[in-house]
Amino acid sequence: MKKNLRSIPYLILLSLISVSSIAQNKIVVFQSDFGLKDGAVSAMKGVAMGVSTDLKLFDLTHEIPAYNIWEAAYRLEQTVRYWPVGTVFVSVVDPGVGTARKSVVLKTKSGHFIVTPDNGTLTLITQSLGIDEVHEIDENINRRKDSKKSYTFHGRDVYAYTAARLAAGVISFEQVGPLLPKQVVSILYQKAVFDGKTLKGNIPVLDVQYGNVWTNIPDTLFNRLNLHYGDMVNVSIFYKHKLVYKDKMPYSQTFGDVAEGKPLAYLNSLLQVSFALNQGDFAKNFHVSSGSDWSVEVSLR
Amino acid sequence: MKKNLRSIPYLILLSLISVSSIAQNKIVVFQSDFGLKDGAVSAMKGVAMGVSTDLKLFDLTHEIPAYNIWEAAYRLEQTVRYWPVGTVFVSVVDPGVGTARKSVVLKTKSGHFIVTPDNGTLTLITQSLGIDEVHEIDENINRRKDSKKSYTFHGRDVYAYTAARLAAGVISFEQVGPLLPKQVVSILYQKAVFDGKTLKGNIPVLDVQYGNVWTNIPDTLFNRLNLHYGDMVNVSIFYKHKLVYKDKMPYSQTFGDVAEGKPLAYLNSLLQVSFALNQGDFAKNFHVSSGSDWSVEVSLR
Amino acid sequence: MKKNLRSIPYLILLSLISVSSIAQNKIVVFQSDFGLKDGAVSAMKGVAMGVSTDLKLFDLTHEIPAYNIWEAAYRLEQTVRYWPVGTVFVSVVDPGVGTARKSVVLKTKSGHFIVTPDNGTLTLITQSLGIDEVHEIDENINRRKDSKKSYTFHGRDVYAYTAARLAAGVISFEQVGPLLPKQVVSILYQKAVFDGKTLKGNIPVLDVQYGNVWTNIPDTLFNRLNLHYGDMVNVSIFYKHKLVYKDKMPYSQTFGDVAEGKPLAYLNSLLQVSFALNQGDFAKNFHVSSGSDWSVEVSLR
Repeated sequence: MKKNLRSIPYLILLSLISVSSIAQNKIVVFQSDFGLKDGAVSAMKGVAMGVSTDLKLFDLTHEIPAYNIWEAAYRLEQTVRYWPVGTVFVSVVDPGVGTARKSVVLKTKSGHFIVTPDNGTLTLITQSLGIDEVHEIDENINRRKDSKKSYTFHGRDVYAYTAARLAAGVISFEQVGPLLPKQVVSILYQKAVFDGKTLKGNIPVLDVQYGNVWTNIPDTLFNRLNLHYGDMVNVSIFYKHKLVYKDKMPYSQTFGDVAEGKPLAYLNSLLQVSFALNQGDFAKNFHVSSGSDWSVEVSLR
Repeated sequence: MKKNLRSIPYLILLSLISVSSIAQNKIVVFQSDFGLKDGAVSAMKGVAMGVSTDLKLFDLTHEIPAYNIWEAAYRLEQTVRYWPVGTVFVSVVDPGVGTARKSVVLKTKSGHFIVTPDNGTLTLITQSLGIDEVHEIDENINRRKDSKKSYTFHGRDVYAYTAARLAAGVISFEQVGPLLPKQVVSILYQKAVFDGKTLKGNIPVLDVQYGNVWTNIPDTLFNRLNLHYGDMVNVSIFYKHKLVYKDKMPYSQTFGDVAEGKPLAYLNSLLQVSFALNQGDFAKNFHVSSGSDWSVEVSLR
Repeated sequence: MKKNLRSIPYLILLSLISVSSIAQNKIVVFQSDFGLKDGAVSAMKGVAMGVSTDLKLFDLTHEIPAYNIWEAAYRLEQTVRYWPVGTVFVSVVDPGVGTARKSVVLKTKSGHFIVTPDNGTLTLITQSLGIDEVHEIDENINRRKDSKKSYTFHGRDVYAYTAARLAAGVISFEQVGPLLPKQVVSILYQKAVFDGKTLKGNIPVLDVQYGNVWTNIPDTLFNRLNLHYGDMVNVSIFYKHKLVYKDKMPYSQTFGDVAEGKPLAYLNSLLQVSFALNQGDFAKNFHVSSGSDWSVEVSLR
């Protein structure tokens, strides 16, 4: 009997541990196109700390080019999986603020939460990590007090506020608002395919700091070319189906495998086919950019 | 009796709770014109963590243009109110470092603390949030050890150090140093006024990431024009009283209410009159900037 | 007897406290040349939080110019000493990623840890703070799971992961990997010297935000010129031994001691000889940059 009685708190403790391991973990990661020059990002974090000082606040990036939903989608795809399950992301790239786009919280099948306008930002992450549930944010409940007049800074008053409440456990996922069908607004782009001879894919993003060109073609598809390090490949790059670049380059393990300034193909840190100039800027040199309008072809001859 | 004895720790606990709720909350928010390219911001945070690893450190911005006290003042005005009461801000934009300007800690009537050189940085926040008390920093006490030789990095050795000690409760507000009169150094600028026909105001800051022009004219004053969405207003912009821009534009609820590239007037997230080009850069297109030398007029005809 | 038994956990507790006070303090500070525009820095922090949510994560800078090992070395030298003993730094500027350079963890004599490729990044910090021990990272143990395929993002999969495990106490310093000799890869540069008439030194870095030129000549050496504020000095600046700039300027306590736009010599916040234009950009005006190829001479006539 005594043992039983004493085990009750233990069970409560256990259940808390198990809840916390499958739900929110008090971590919030912010992304936006606000830049770091003004107080917008700081105001979002202030609102979050006002919800709970136990939260741990981090940044993905705030240097998304203004209104570039595609890049917001890609940064989530690049980063979310490296954060612990239960982390709550806020992504605010919102050219349609004030229009009819829905404000949602997505839970991926991997157990990550993303708070965002549903405007295409979720295109890539839902394709890779899957949709567990989507809830629309009920702004009657989940909106900072004294913020209902006129034009609103939704990033601060709705998204950061809702994310903080969710991450801190002030509200449950269900209390975000009405359950929506398992679908999100998606942007069209060239998916990675192999026709037995040529690989096709998209340039989702540049490795901006170095000017490397990253594609969405995964190693698993690339391996079907049966290449060894040093083998030459033909690379063509298109903008809206118009040829922008065409050349041969070796498949290389490291940048140092080619002379300074020479092109190479390699697998980047996400194990996707990429192109670079050793110690140079491929994108700038060949006027290559990224987004849903850019595509590539890679072949052996 | 037993109850009385046991209630003593309870009273101590209560008093601690009540002190912590009206005083510092272990949060420090840093602002400067240091940029993020070197180690200056990191050194300030290292000093703060050396005071107490319980502190929670955040940034407002470090991209204030070099020596631009006005913009420092505006970023505080834009941001402080969104942080919990008791938060300690450090603002270091200090062209007069080493000269006679005072180093102070301001407590606003809202209960926020700001640690800064008193050089105009407090112009706007004191006008909006009021002055509760100002103390001068006694550098004999509140200065990092081993930092007294020659020229000093005051941001690190005095401001970050004092802010950290205050936020962590190592010193009380009184222990900052001598109480000063309730006044601060203020910069002159066009305050928001309405003469019954025309609104006048200042351009405190640009919404830099998007190139939108923000004024200091609040919605309460703007509403006296009795406008409806879609009504046209005349907007004139002056630099040192010289006309820089003049045009008509509609008062709009969202950017999408006008064609791409067209101007609109709207209320920004601080509920202040602002001007933008839909998906364009108003400031860059019309060579408009911000600061105490810039003013605007808005009227119905 | 009973007392003895009960004191065992106490002793364990005591030993834990004493270990934690001399070893890692759960703080990790990140530096890289990744910039803040993509998800790379965030992915590193996500991996660290996956190791332990008790960690406190900060940044030194991520704006090191791409591949600039020298500047990485200088930023560590500028910043490490201001963080509490036991802090773990991660520095990832790694042009040789995938080549034979070693991945190491250095413990300085001051008790700071630095996780980095050993490619010159440790040149300056080891000269100033000394080498306590160097361990090579054993990537068979200290590498993120599921990261062994092909090209790897070492910053995330090895350096951030190892730093987090070390900072959180998941591994001890010894468990990083094999002990190495007390030496690191060093870059050659003009050390600060005084020949009785002329001071010689290097320009390790610019104070980039303001364009001030910082040298490695310390106040202790400078004082041997026996200068008073206002005394004039001759300053010559060389790139690869070729004269780039030569002029006279006063030794000044504060920038305001000279007219706007005029040059001055002063001691910066690290108490090193520096040159500036009052409210101007010395480096830009005179095309002066920094690195191991730049040197200066300062003399009285």
